[in-house]
Amino acid sequence: MANLLKGKDVALAINENNRKEADALKEKGIVPTLAIMRVGENDSDISYEKGAMKRCGEAGVETRNIILPADVDSDTFFNELDKLNNDSSVHGILMFRPLPKQLDSELARISINPDKDVDGCTDGSLAGVFTNRKMGFAPCTAEAAVAILDYYNIDVSGKNVVVLGRSLVIGKPVSMLLLNRNATVTICHTKTVNVQDITKKADILILATGQMESVTKGYVSNNQTVIDVGISWNESKGKLCGDALFEEVEPIVENITPVPGGVGAVTTSILVRHVIEAAKRN
Amino acid sequence: MANLLKGKDVALAINENNRKEADALKEKGIVPTLAIMRVGENDSDISYEKGAMKRCGEAGVETRNIILPADVDSDTFFNELDKLNNDSSVHGILMFRPLPKQLDSELARISINPDKDVDGCTDGSLAGVFTNRKMGFAPCTAEAAVAILDYYNIDVSGKNVVVLGRSLVIGKPVSMLLLNRNATVTICHTKTVNVQDITKKADILILATGQMESVTKGYVSNNQTVIDVGISWNESKGKLCGDALFEEVEPIVENITPVPGGVGAVTTSILVRHVIEAAKRN
Repeated sequence: MANLLKGKDVALAINENNRKEADALKEKGIVPTLAIMRVGENDSDISYEKGAMKRCGEAGVETRNIILPADVDSDTFFNELDKLNNDSSVHGILMFRPLPKQLDSELARISINPDKDVDGCTDGSLAGVFTNRKMGFAPCTAEAAVAILDYYNIDVSGKNVVVLGRSLVIGKPVSMLLLNRNATVTICHTKTVNVQDITKKADILILATGQMESVTKGYVSNNQTVIDVGISWNESKGKLCGDALFEEVEPIVENITPVPGGVGAVTTSILVRHVIEAAKRN
Repeated sequence: MANLLKGKDVALAINENNRKEADALKEKGIVPTLAIMRVGENDSDISYEKGAMKRCGEAGVETRNIILPADVDSDTFFNELDKLNNDSSVHGILMFRPLPKQLDSELARISINPDKDVDGCTDGSLAGVFTNRKMGFAPCTAEAAVAILDYYNIDVSGKNVVVLGRSLVIGKPVSMLLLNRNATVTICHTKTVNVQDITKKADILILATGQMESVTKGYVSNNQTVIDVGISWNESKGKLCGDALFEEVEPIVENITPVPGGVGAVTTSILVRHVIEAAKRN
């Protein structure tokens, strides 16, 4: 039986700190504020938006919702974004992507003011992660994975960390965040040969393949910590599942994050932390 | 006896291509031009400058030398940089750093026009390397290491590549360049535990520690390719040496770059390639 690294406790600790930091800012007359830009009525966008608003509310961070119709024209969209970029009372911008076809998602991404890029999607933020400098913010999910290790006192320095996946949202940034904390990092992906030989020798395994239940007992060994970033709807089981086949992996490893209730439960707390940090930097 | 992966042949092939590309640009009335900014009379700067000018000359790329006294004031320095940034006849800027104390090296770095950053030191270039997008340029030495593998047809896809070192000049960017080519990449550094166990299992080993002759026979095994990026003056031997203790490592591995005459022999050819690419993009 592995220890369950529950996200809830991590989130609570971060939320409490967020609340204190936000209070301190308000005493100085600054109300940390997140603008959320959503185009259309995508269910998962709405669900994340609700979660983010709840977390902001708990910490005393204000939210401003910019909801545009799915068929919004490009000029209107970019005007709205410009307004948020230039509004000094807005400290962070969360923009749901991909955007509908008539909007240039890539242009939208690079058009966000890097100082307000609390979701870590601009080149400035990614350069900050790569170079280990305080520019922009790390992608929230990548930072959430690290926050869980921190909270449960799982030291990464000198440890062999294997990251499965090399996306810009998780795989690459989490690799850099852990490298910056002195982990020895191996990045695996779909072209990796004999991946099970590599993952079995890891001290810490970060799963970010997006391939539901693809990590089976053959990938893991005793004494490992598994951080499962994946989250997919399993139609046949009628529930959310991670990249790990939980019933096979959990009995073998030492620590594992549940799905749901693991990394995903921490992400919005990190987002709020970034909004507060953006307000502080400003 | 390992095969020697000599840089000279690689450089010759790149130079030939550079020449053709530069000729094609000139037919369109564009003369690819590199500006070299040097402050003071540092020997190694002057030596690299000479090499870069020679390579540029061979390819038909023009050079413009901006040589400032070691005690130049900040206004003068940044005015010169501004002029180069805004001069449309200059396609690439090579700036020697670190700069003397009275100049802000970090400000100088971020002040280079990213489109002209042919040495890959700005955040824009580093973000391009990290995200695998065509922005700026990779650091020349990192790209030179990859060019050697390419020239000698050493396929990296699916191979286990171990990179020793995590600097922004070599370790991190070369890791990303190889990851983008589907290598499975492990990044090791001074905090890595049992590093010899890791390096021995690599298919390809990139040495970028800057610790002269620190990689001994215990680090390597048969059938490996070793790319030695290190170059240091060995006082007792009276010659340049790499990170590998060559006489111990060479008899064991399959392929190895000599030092000198390996990666270092390719760097300026890559620099010239970047100047031409910058002129083409423009």
